[in-house]
Amino acid sequence: MVRPGGKRESGAWELRRNEIVDCAAHLFATNGYHATGVAELGEAVQLGRGALYYYITSKENLLSLIHDRVIVDVLATGEKAIALEGTSSDRLRFLSGELLRIIVSFPDHVWVFLHEFRSLQGEAADEFRKSRRVFEQAIEQILQDGVDSGEFTVESPRLAALGWLGLHNYTYIWFNETGAFSPDEIAKHFSNIFLSGVLVR
Amino acid sequence: MVRPGGKRESGAWELRRNEIVDCAAHLFATNGYHATGVAELGEAVQLGRGALYYYITSKENLLSLIHDRVIVDVLATGEKAIALEGTSSDRLRFLSGELLRIIVSFPDHVWVFLHEFRSLQGEAADEFRKSRRVFEQAIEQILQDGVDSGEFTVESPRLAALGWLGLHNYTYIWFNETGAFSPDEIAKHFSNIFLSGVLVR
Repeated sequence: MVRPGGKRESGAWELRRNEIVDCAAHLFATNGYHATGVAELGEAVQLGRGALYYYITSKENLLSLIHDRVIVDVLATGEKAIALEGTSSDRLRFLSGELLRIIVSFPDHVWVFLHEFRSLQGEAADEFRKSRRVFEQAIEQILQDGVDSGEFTVESPRLAALGWLGLHNYTYIWFNETGAFSPDEIAKHFSNIFLSGVLVR
Repeated sequence: MVRPGGKRESGAWELRRNEIVDCAAHLFATNGYHATGVAELGEAVQLGRGALYYYITSKENLLSLIHDRVIVDVLATGEKAIALEGTSSDRLRFLSGELLRIIVSFPDHVWVFLHEFRSLQGEAADEFRKSRRVFEQAIEQILQDGVDSGEFTVESPRLAALGWLGLHNYTYIWFNETGAFSPDEIAKHFSNIFLSGVLVR
C-alpha cells in the first residue's frame, strides 16, 4: 500500500487507515456526507487533524477510499466468476452469492458510494465510473458466453446486465429493515428468478 | 389541496408550489440536500424567505413534498395494475411500463427521496415507509394472484416483489448515462427476464 505522498507504508498503517475509512463510512451513512466534518471524524477515531492527514488527503479522498474498500472485492469476485469452470448459470449463481455477501458486509460503504458518487471529481470520478463499467462488463460477458453456448436467450446483454445489477444492488436499501432473509437465500431466490423467471414452465 | 395551516388554496397556488418543489428536487439532486440552503432555493424561484414559506413549512417539508409528487402517481399505478383485466403477467407488464415512465419523468425527485429518506423524521418518515409498503404489497398481491391461479411459481412473493422493485428502481442510477434505451424498451426487456428468465426453454 502506497500512501498519497508516494511513500510505502506498513501493514499497521494500512490497518489503521481501514479503521478510519470504516468509521467515516458509518458517519457519512448515518448523518450524511455533507453534514459530517473532518473534525467530527477525527474525534470518532481519536486523532487530531494533523495525525488524521497522515492517513487521508481530504474529505473527498475518503469517498474514494470508502469506494475502494468495496470495489476491490467486487472486481475480484467478477474475475473469479468469469474464470469459474461450469455453465454460465453456475457463474451467475456464484456471482450473486458473493455480491450479496459483500453488500451485506459493507452496508455503510455501499450506501455512501451509491449516494455520493456525484460528489467525486476529476480522476476519482473517472476511477469510479471505470470500475463500475469493468464489473458491468464481467456480467455482460457471462451473459454473452451463455448466449454463445446456447444456454441463454438474451435480447440485450447490456440491459440484462444492468437488470441483474439492479436486482442485487438495490438490496442495500431494504436488507437491514427486513432481516428475515440471509444473503444466501436472497441470492438463491434472485438467481432462480433471473435464470428461470416466475412463469410456470 | 390544503396548505399546512389548514387553509384551502387555489389551483394557482398549487401550480406554483409544484414549481418550487420541482426546482428544489433539481437543486438537491445536483448539489445535495444538506449543501442546499433555503435562501438558494428562494433565489432560484425568485421568492423571498417570507413568500417561500407561504408554500412550504421547512426544508424538511420539501423532502416530503418531493416524495409526494412521485408517490401519488406510483400508488395510483399500483391500484390500476391490480384492477386490470387480464393475467398477472399482463398486470406486471403494465406496472413495469408505468413505473419506468414515472422514474424517467422525475429523475431528480427519485434521486432525492431514495437518497435522503433517512433525513425524514416523525410523521413524514412514517408516511414514507407506509407508502413504500403499500406499493410493495401491490406487487406482492399480483404475484400471489399469479401463484393462486397457477400462472406463476414463486417461492417467496415478498422477496420476488423486492427483486422486481430493485430491477426497476435501480434504473434511476444509470438511465441518464445510457440514453440508448427508451423506458418502454427497458420495461419490455425487464418484464421478459422477470417473467421468463434468461434460460433457453
